[in-house]
Amino acid sequence: MSETQDFEALTRYAKAFTGLTPEREACLLEVSEQLQPLLATVTDKFYEQLGHIPETAPFLEGRVDTLKKSHLAWIQSLFTGPFDISCTELMYKVGDIHVKVHLPVEFMAGAMSMINNELILLVIEQFADDQEKMALVLTSINSITSFSLFVMQQSYQESTVAEELDKFLRISGMSRVLFTNLANAYSD
Amino acid sequence: MSETQDFEALTRYAKAFTGLTPEREACLLEVSEQLQPLLATVTDKFYEQLGHIPETAPFLEGRVDTLKKSHLAWIQSLFTGPFDISCTELMYKVGDIHVKVHLPVEFMAGAMSMINNELILLVIEQFADDQEKMALVLTSINSITSFSLFVMQQSYQESTVAEELDKFLRISGMSRVLFTNLANAYSD
Repeated sequence: MSETQDFEALTRYAKAFTGLTPEREACLLEVSEQLQPLLATVTDKFYEQLGHIPETAPFLEGRVDTLKKSHLAWIQSLFTGPFDISCTELMYKVGDIHVKVHLPVEFMAGAMSMINNELILLVIEQFADDQEKMALVLTSINSITSFSLFVMQQSYQESTVAEELDKFLRISGMSRVLFTNLANAYSD
Repeated sequence: MSETQDFEALTRYAKAFTGLTPEREACLLEVSEQLQPLLATVTDKFYEQLGHIPETAPFLEGRVDTLKKSHLAWIQSLFTGPFDISCTELMYKVGDIHVKVHLPVEFMAGAMSMINNELILLVIEQFADDQEKMALVLTSINSITSFSLFVMQQSYQESTVAEELDKFLRISGMSRVLFTNLANAYSD
Protein backbone atom coordinates (compact mmCIF):
# COMPACT_ATOMS: atom_id res chain seq x y z
CA MET A 1 0.00 0.00 0.00
CA SER A 2 1.67 3.20 -1.16
CA GLU A 3 0.74 6.63 0.12
CA THR A 4 1.73 8.17 -3.20
CA GLN A 5 0.44 6.02 -6.03
CA ASP A 6 2.58 5.92 -9.17
CA PHE A 7 -0.15 6.58 -11.73
CA GLU A 8 2.11 6.20 -14.72
CA ALA A 9 3.07 2.69 -13.66
CA LEU A 10 -0.54 1.87 -12.81
CA THR A 11 -1.69 3.05 -16.25
CA ARG A 12 0.87 0.83 -17.99
CA TYR A 13 0.01 -2.12 -15.76
CA ALA A 14 -3.77 -1.78 -16.19
CA LYS A 15 -3.49 -1.37 -19.98
CA ALA A 16 -1.32 -4.48 -20.29
CA PHE A 17 -3.72 -6.54 -18.21
CA THR A 18 -6.93 -5.42 -19.89
CA GLY A 19 -5.59 -5.37 -23.45
CA LEU A 20 -6.19 -1.66 -23.94
CA THR A 21 -3.89 -1.38 -26.94
CA PRO A 22 -3.34 1.73 -29.12
CA GLU A 23 -5.43 0.02 -31.83
CA ARG A 24 -8.38 -0.37 -29.46
CA GLU A 25 -8.04 3.19 -28.15
CA ALA A 26 -8.14 4.44 -31.75
CA CYS A 27 -11.23 2.32 -32.38
CA LEU A 28 -13.07 3.81 -29.38
CA LEU A 29 -12.34 7.34 -30.61
CA GLU A 30 -13.41 6.43 -34.12
CA VAL A 31 -16.84 5.08 -33.16
CA SER A 32 -17.50 7.78 -30.58
CA GLU A 33 -19.56 10.02 -32.84
CA GLN A 34 -21.81 7.14 -33.87
CA LEU A 35 -22.36 5.83 -30.33
CA GLN A 36 -22.56 8.99 -28.22
CA PRO A 37 -26.27 9.69 -28.95
CA LEU A 38 -27.13 6.16 -27.77
CA LEU A 39 -25.28 6.17 -24.47
CA ALA A 40 -27.96 7.90 -22.38
CA THR A 41 -30.12 4.81 -22.94
CA VAL A 42 -27.37 2.63 -21.47
CA THR A 43 -27.30 4.78 -18.33
CA ASP A 44 -31.10 4.77 -18.07
CA LYS A 45 -31.32 0.99 -18.42
CA PHE A 46 -28.51 0.55 -15.91
CA TYR A 47 -30.31 2.48 -13.17
CA GLU A 48 -33.59 0.82 -14.04
CA GLN A 49 -31.98 -2.61 -13.53
CA LEU A 50 -30.29 -1.50 -10.30
CA GLY A 51 -33.72 -0.45 -9.05
CA HIS A 52 -34.81 -4.09 -9.17
CA ILE A 53 -32.04 -5.32 -6.86
CA PRO A 54 -32.95 -4.98 -3.16
CA GLU A 55 -29.30 -4.62 -2.10
CA THR A 56 -28.70 -1.52 -4.22
CA ALA A 57 -31.82 0.43 -3.25
CA PRO A 58 -30.32 2.18 -0.17
CA PHE A 59 -27.56 3.63 -2.35
CA LEU A 60 -29.97 5.05 -4.90
CA GLU A 61 -32.70 6.63 -2.79
CA GLY A 62 -33.27 10.23 -3.78
CA ARG A 63 -29.99 10.38 -5.68
CA VAL A 64 -30.74 8.72 -9.02
CA ASP A 65 -30.75 11.93 -11.09
CA THR A 66 -27.39 13.07 -9.74
CA LEU A 67 -25.89 9.60 -10.12
CA LYS A 68 -27.16 9.33 -13.68
CA LYS A 69 -25.39 12.54 -14.64
CA SER A 70 -21.96 11.43 -13.48
CA HIS A 71 -22.54 7.94 -14.82
CA LEU A 72 -23.37 9.23 -18.29
CA ALA A 73 -20.35 11.55 -18.25
CA TRP A 74 -18.18 8.54 -17.43
CA ILE A 75 -19.64 6.32 -20.19
CA GLN A 76 -19.20 9.13 -22.69
CA SER A 77 -15.58 9.51 -21.66
CA LEU A 78 -14.93 5.84 -22.48
CA PHE A 79 -15.14 6.87 -26.14
CA THR A 80 -13.54 10.30 -26.03
CA GLY A 81 -10.45 9.59 -23.95
CA PRO A 82 -7.83 10.70 -23.31
CA PHE A 83 -6.64 7.22 -22.36
CA ASP A 84 -3.79 8.42 -20.25
CA ILE A 85 -2.75 9.00 -16.68
CA SER A 86 -5.67 11.44 -16.14
CA CYS A 87 -8.13 8.64 -16.87
CA THR A 88 -6.35 6.40 -14.35
CA GLU A 89 -6.33 9.14 -11.70
CA LEU A 90 -10.05 9.70 -12.18
CA MET A 91 -11.00 6.01 -11.85
CA TYR A 92 -8.71 5.68 -8.85
CA LYS A 93 -10.57 8.54 -7.20
CA VAL A 94 -13.91 6.92 -8.06
CA GLY A 95 -12.79 3.70 -6.36
CA ASP A 96 -11.83 5.71 -3.29
CA ILE A 97 -15.22 7.46 -3.23
CA HIS A 98 -16.94 4.08 -3.42
CA VAL A 99 -15.14 3.01 -0.24
CA LYS A 100 -16.09 6.26 1.51
CA VAL A 101 -19.80 5.73 0.79
CA HIS A 102 -19.39 2.09 1.91
CA LEU A 103 -20.38 0.61 -1.43
CA PRO A 104 -19.86 -3.17 -1.32
CA VAL A 105 -16.89 -4.18 -3.48
CA GLU A 106 -18.91 -6.59 -5.62
CA PHE A 107 -21.16 -3.73 -6.82
CA MET A 108 -18.42 -2.57 -9.17
CA ALA A 109 -17.96 -5.90 -10.98
CA GLY A 110 -21.74 -6.38 -11.07
CA ALA A 111 -22.35 -2.91 -12.45
CA MET A 112 -19.74 -3.36 -15.16
CA SER A 113 -21.43 -6.59 -16.17
CA MET A 114 -24.75 -4.79 -16.71
CA ILE A 115 -23.12 -1.97 -18.65
CA ASN A 116 -21.20 -4.39 -20.88
CA ASN A 117 -24.34 -6.35 -21.67
CA GLU A 118 -26.16 -3.19 -22.77
CA LEU A 119 -23.19 -2.11 -24.87
CA ILE A 120 -22.90 -5.56 -26.51
CA LEU A 121 -26.51 -5.34 -27.73
CA LEU A 122 -26.02 -1.81 -28.96
CA VAL A 123 -22.81 -2.58 -30.85
CA ILE A 124 -24.17 -5.70 -32.55
CA GLU A 125 -27.10 -3.65 -33.79
CA GLN A 126 -24.95 -0.72 -34.94
CA PHE A 127 -22.28 -2.73 -36.74
CA ALA A 128 -24.50 -5.48 -38.09
CA ASP A 129 -23.07 -5.24 -41.60
CA ASP A 130 -19.39 -5.26 -40.67
CA GLN A 131 -18.41 -8.23 -38.55
CA GLU A 132 -14.71 -7.39 -38.39
CA LYS A 133 -15.48 -3.91 -37.11
CA MET A 134 -18.00 -5.35 -34.66
CA ALA A 135 -15.32 -7.63 -33.19
CA LEU A 136 -12.88 -4.75 -32.81
CA VAL A 137 -15.48 -2.45 -31.21
CA LEU A 138 -16.68 -5.14 -28.78
CA THR A 139 -13.17 -6.08 -27.63
CA SER A 140 -12.23 -2.39 -27.36
CA ILE A 141 -15.24 -1.69 -25.15
CA ASN A 142 -14.52 -4.74 -23.01
CA SER A 143 -10.94 -3.53 -22.59
CA ILE A 144 -11.85 0.02 -21.57
CA THR A 145 -14.60 -0.99 -19.11
CA SER A 146 -12.22 -3.60 -17.65
CA PHE A 147 -9.51 -0.95 -17.40
CA SER A 148 -11.89 1.21 -15.36
CA LEU A 149 -12.83 -1.70 -13.11
CA PHE A 150 -9.21 -2.74 -12.69
CA VAL A 151 -8.09 0.71 -11.52
CA MET A 152 -11.17 1.27 -9.32
CA GLN A 153 -10.66 -2.03 -7.57
CA GLN A 154 -7.02 -1.49 -6.86
CA SER A 155 -7.90 1.84 -5.32
CA TYR A 156 -10.85 0.31 -3.46
CA GLN A 157 -8.67 -2.39 -1.96
CA GLU A 158 -6.01 0.06 -0.80
CA SER A 159 -8.57 2.42 0.70
CA THR A 160 -10.36 -0.42 2.49
CA VAL A 161 -7.23 -1.73 4.14
CA ALA A 162 -6.28 1.84 5.10
CA GLU A 163 -9.72 2.38 6.65
CA GLU A 164 -9.57 -0.91 8.59
CA LEU A 165 -6.11 -0.03 9.85
CA ASP A 166 -7.28 3.37 11.06
CA LYS A 167 -10.08 1.69 12.99
CA PHE A 168 -7.72 -0.80 14.62
CA LEU A 169 -5.26 1.91 15.58
CA ARG A 170 -8.06 3.96 17.11
CA ILE A 171 -9.29 0.96 19.10
CA SER A 172 -5.89 -0.17 20.32
CA GLY A 173 -4.53 3.31 20.92
CA MET A 174 -1.40 2.18 19.09
CA SER A 175 0.61 4.67 17.00
CA ARG A 176 1.05 3.98 13.31
CA VAL A 177 4.84 3.83 13.72
CA LEU A 178 4.58 1.22 16.47
CA PHE A 179 2.10 -0.75 14.40
CA THR A 180 4.42 -0.73 11.35
CA ASN A 181 7.38 -1.85 13.46
CA LEU A 182 5.35 -4.66 15.00
CA ALA A 183 3.89 -5.66 11.63
CA ASN A 184 7.39 -5.93 10.17
CA ALA A 185 8.53 -8.02 13.13
CA TYR A 186 5.52 -10.32 12.80
CA SER A 187 5.39 -10.58 9.01
CA ASP A 188 5.55 -14.11 7.69
CA MET B 1 -18.36 -10.55 7.42
CA SER B 2 -20.17 -13.78 8.11
CA GLU B 3 -18.44 -16.94 9.29
CA THR B 4 -21.11 -19.03 7.65
CA GLN B 5 -21.91 -17.62 4.23
CA ASP B 6 -25.50 -18.02 3.01
CA PHE B 7 -24.74 -19.43 -0.45
CA GLU B 8 -28.35 -19.56 -1.53
CA ALA B 9 -28.75 -15.83 -0.90
CA LEU B 10 -25.40 -15.10 -2.55
CA THR B 11 -26.41 -17.09 -5.64
CA ARG B 12 -29.65 -15.12 -5.98
CA TYR B 13 -27.86 -11.81 -5.38
CA ALA B 14 -25.04 -12.52 -7.86
CA LYS B 15 -27.46 -13.70 -10.55
CA ALA B 16 -29.60 -10.59 -10.19
CA PHE B 17 -26.60 -8.31 -10.45
CA THR B 18 -24.92 -10.00 -13.39
CA GLY B 19 -28.08 -10.72 -15.36
CA LEU B 20 -27.63 -14.48 -15.30
CA THR B 21 -31.22 -15.25 -16.22
CA PRO B 22 -32.72 -18.70 -16.92
CA GLU B 23 -32.75 -17.77 -20.63
CA ARG B 24 -29.01 -17.10 -20.60
CA GLU B 25 -28.27 -20.24 -18.60
CA ALA B 26 -30.20 -22.26 -21.20
CA CYS B 27 -28.23 -20.54 -23.97
CA LEU B 28 -24.88 -21.49 -22.39
CA LEU B 29 -25.94 -25.13 -22.15
CA GLU B 30 -27.21 -25.08 -25.71
CA VAL B 31 -23.98 -23.81 -27.28
CA SER B 32 -21.75 -25.93 -25.05
CA GLU B 33 -21.24 -28.75 -27.55
CA GLN B 34 -20.25 -26.32 -30.30
CA LEU B 35 -17.82 -24.32 -28.16
CA GLN B 36 -16.18 -26.97 -25.94
CA PRO B 37 -13.58 -28.07 -28.54
CA LEU B 38 -12.45 -24.43 -28.90
CA LEU B 39 -12.00 -23.59 -25.22
CA ALA B 40 -8.49 -25.03 -24.79
CA THR B 41 -7.30 -22.29 -27.17
CA VAL B 42 -8.80 -19.64 -24.89
CA THR B 43 -6.87 -21.05 -21.93
CA ASP B 44 -3.65 -21.27 -23.96
CA LYS B 45 -3.94 -17.67 -25.18
CA PHE B 46 -4.77 -16.52 -21.66
CA TYR B 47 -1.57 -17.93 -20.17
CA GLU B 48 0.44 -16.74 -23.15
CA GLN B 49 -0.79 -13.17 -22.54
CA LEU B 50 -0.17 -13.44 -18.79
CA GLY B 51 3.39 -14.43 -19.61
CA HIS B 52 3.95 -11.00 -21.12
CA ILE B 53 2.99 -9.10 -17.96
CA PRO B 54 5.92 -8.70 -15.54
CA GLU B 55 3.62 -8.55 -12.48
CA THR B 56 2.11 -11.98 -13.12
CA ALA B 57 5.35 -13.89 -13.76
CA PRO B 58 6.05 -14.82 -10.10
CA PHE B 59 2.64 -16.49 -9.86
CA LEU B 60 3.20 -18.60 -12.97
CA GLU B 61 6.74 -19.88 -12.57
CA GLY B 62 6.88 -23.65 -12.91
CA ARG B 63 3.13 -23.96 -12.44
CA VAL B 64 1.66 -23.13 -15.85
CA ASP B 65 0.68 -26.69 -16.77
CA THR B 66 -1.17 -27.27 -13.49
CA LEU B 67 -2.84 -23.87 -13.65
CA LYS B 68 -3.91 -24.46 -17.25
CA LYS B 69 -5.68 -27.67 -16.26
CA SER B 70 -7.84 -26.11 -13.57
CA HIS B 71 -8.42 -23.02 -15.72
CA LEU B 72 -9.70 -25.10 -18.63
CA ALA B 73 -11.93 -27.12 -16.32
CA TRP B 74 -13.43 -23.86 -15.05
CA ILE B 75 -14.01 -22.39 -18.55
CA GLN B 76 -15.64 -25.63 -19.63
CA SER B 77 -17.92 -25.54 -16.61
CA LEU B 78 -19.20 -22.10 -17.67
CA PHE B 79 -21.10 -23.89 -20.42
CA THR B 80 -22.07 -27.09 -18.65
CA GLY B 81 -23.40 -25.73 -15.38
CA PRO B 82 -25.07 -26.50 -13.09
CA PHE B 83 -25.70 -22.82 -12.41
CA ASP B 84 -26.68 -23.33 -8.82
CA ILE B 85 -25.38 -23.05 -5.31
CA SER B 86 -22.55 -25.54 -6.07
CA CYS B 87 -21.19 -23.13 -8.69
CA THR B 88 -21.30 -20.28 -6.16
CA GLU B 89 -19.55 -22.35 -3.49
CA LEU B 90 -16.80 -23.28 -5.93
CA MET B 91 -16.10 -19.69 -7.04
CA TYR B 92 -16.21 -18.54 -3.42
CA LYS B 93 -13.54 -21.12 -2.61
CA VAL B 94 -11.47 -19.97 -5.60
CA GLY B 95 -11.59 -16.37 -4.32
CA ASP B 96 -10.43 -17.60 -0.93
CA ILE B 97 -7.55 -19.54 -2.49
CA HIS B 98 -6.51 -16.41 -4.39
CA VAL B 99 -6.17 -14.55 -1.07
CA LYS B 100 -4.14 -17.40 0.43
CA VAL B 101 -1.62 -17.31 -2.44
CA HIS B 102 -1.55 -13.49 -2.09
CA LEU B 103 -2.82 -12.85 -5.61
CA PRO B 104 -3.43 -9.10 -6.03
CA VAL B 105 -7.18 -8.36 -6.19
CA GLU B 106 -6.97 -6.62 -9.56
CA PHE B 107 -5.65 -9.83 -11.21
CA MET B 108 -9.17 -11.28 -11.17
CA ALA B 109 -10.83 -8.40 -13.03
CA GLY B 110 -7.88 -8.21 -15.42
CA ALA B 111 -7.94 -11.92 -16.12
CA MET B 112 -11.68 -11.88 -16.77
CA SER B 113 -11.14 -9.09 -19.26
CA MET B 114 -8.64 -11.20 -21.26
CA ILE B 115 -10.90 -14.24 -21.18
CA ASN B 116 -13.92 -12.24 -22.31
CA ASN B 117 -12.00 -10.73 -25.21
CA GLU B 118 -10.95 -14.17 -26.44
CA LEU B 119 -14.50 -15.47 -26.10
CA ILE B 120 -15.94 -12.44 -27.96
CA LEU B 121 -13.75 -13.17 -30.99
CA LEU B 122 -14.60 -16.86 -30.89
CA VAL B 123 -18.37 -16.29 -30.65
CA ILE B 124 -18.49 -13.70 -33.44
CA GLU B 125 -16.72 -16.19 -35.68
CA GLN B 126 -18.90 -19.13 -34.69
CA PHE B 127 -22.26 -17.36 -34.96
CA ALA B 128 -21.46 -15.13 -37.93
CA ASP B 129 -24.65 -16.01 -39.75
CA ASP B 130 -27.09 -15.54 -36.87
CA GLN B 131 -26.85 -12.12 -35.28
CA GLU B 132 -29.66 -12.66 -32.80
CA LYS B 133 -28.04 -15.82 -31.51
CA MET B 134 -24.68 -14.07 -31.39
CA ALA B 135 -26.12 -11.35 -29.16
CA LEU B 136 -27.66 -13.89 -26.81
CA VAL B 137 -24.46 -15.96 -26.59
CA LEU B 138 -22.26 -12.90 -25.98
CA THR B 139 -24.47 -11.49 -23.23
CA SER B 140 -24.82 -14.95 -21.66
CA ILE B 141 -21.05 -15.38 -21.56
CA ASN B 142 -20.58 -11.89 -20.14
CA SER B 143 -23.13 -12.72 -17.44
CA ILE B 144 -21.54 -16.02 -16.41
CA THR B 145 -17.97 -14.68 -16.33
CA SER B 146 -19.22 -11.66 -14.35
CA PHE B 147 -21.07 -13.99 -11.99
CA SER B 148 -17.80 -15.84 -11.33
CA LEU B 149 -15.92 -12.58 -10.77
CA PHE B 150 -18.67 -11.22 -8.53
CA VAL B 151 -18.62 -14.25 -6.21
CA MET B 152 -14.82 -14.54 -6.18
CA GLN B 153 -14.46 -10.91 -5.25
CA GLN B 154 -16.92 -11.03 -2.42
CA SER B 155 -15.07 -14.00 -1.02
CA TYR B 156 -11.71 -12.31 -1.64
CA GLN B 157 -12.77 -9.21 0.24
CA GLU B 158 -14.05 -11.16 3.23
CA SER B 159 -10.95 -13.35 3.38
CA THR B 160 -8.65 -10.32 3.11
CA VAL B 161 -10.30 -8.49 5.96
CA ALA B 162 -10.23 -11.70 8.03
CA GLU B 163 -6.53 -12.12 7.33
CA GLU B 164 -5.76 -8.49 8.23
CA LEU B 165 -7.75 -8.84 11.43
CA ASP B 166 -5.84 -11.98 12.42
CA LYS B 167 -2.59 -10.10 11.92
CA PHE B 168 -3.73 -7.17 14.07
CA LEU B 169 -4.95 -9.48 16.83
CA ARG B 170 -1.65 -11.35 16.80
CA ILE B 171 0.28 -8.09 17.05
CA SER B 172 -1.83 -6.51 19.76
CA GLY B 173 -2.35 -9.72 21.72
CA MET B 174 -6.04 -8.76 21.89
CA SER B 175 -8.70 -11.49 21.95
CA ARG B 176 -11.25 -11.58 19.16
CA VAL B 177 -14.09 -11.07 21.66
CA LEU B 178 -12.48 -7.95 23.13
CA PHE B 179 -11.81 -6.65 19.63
CA THR B 180 -15.44 -7.14 18.60
CA ASN B 181 -16.68 -5.40 21.74
CA LEU B 182 -14.36 -2.46 21.17
CA ALA B 183 -15.19 -2.30 17.45
CA ASN B 184 -18.89 -2.11 18.30
CA ALA B 185 -18.24 0.62 20.85
CA TYR B 186 -16.17 2.61 18.34
CA SER B 187 -18.28 2.06 15.24
CA ASP B 188 -19.43 5.23 13.50
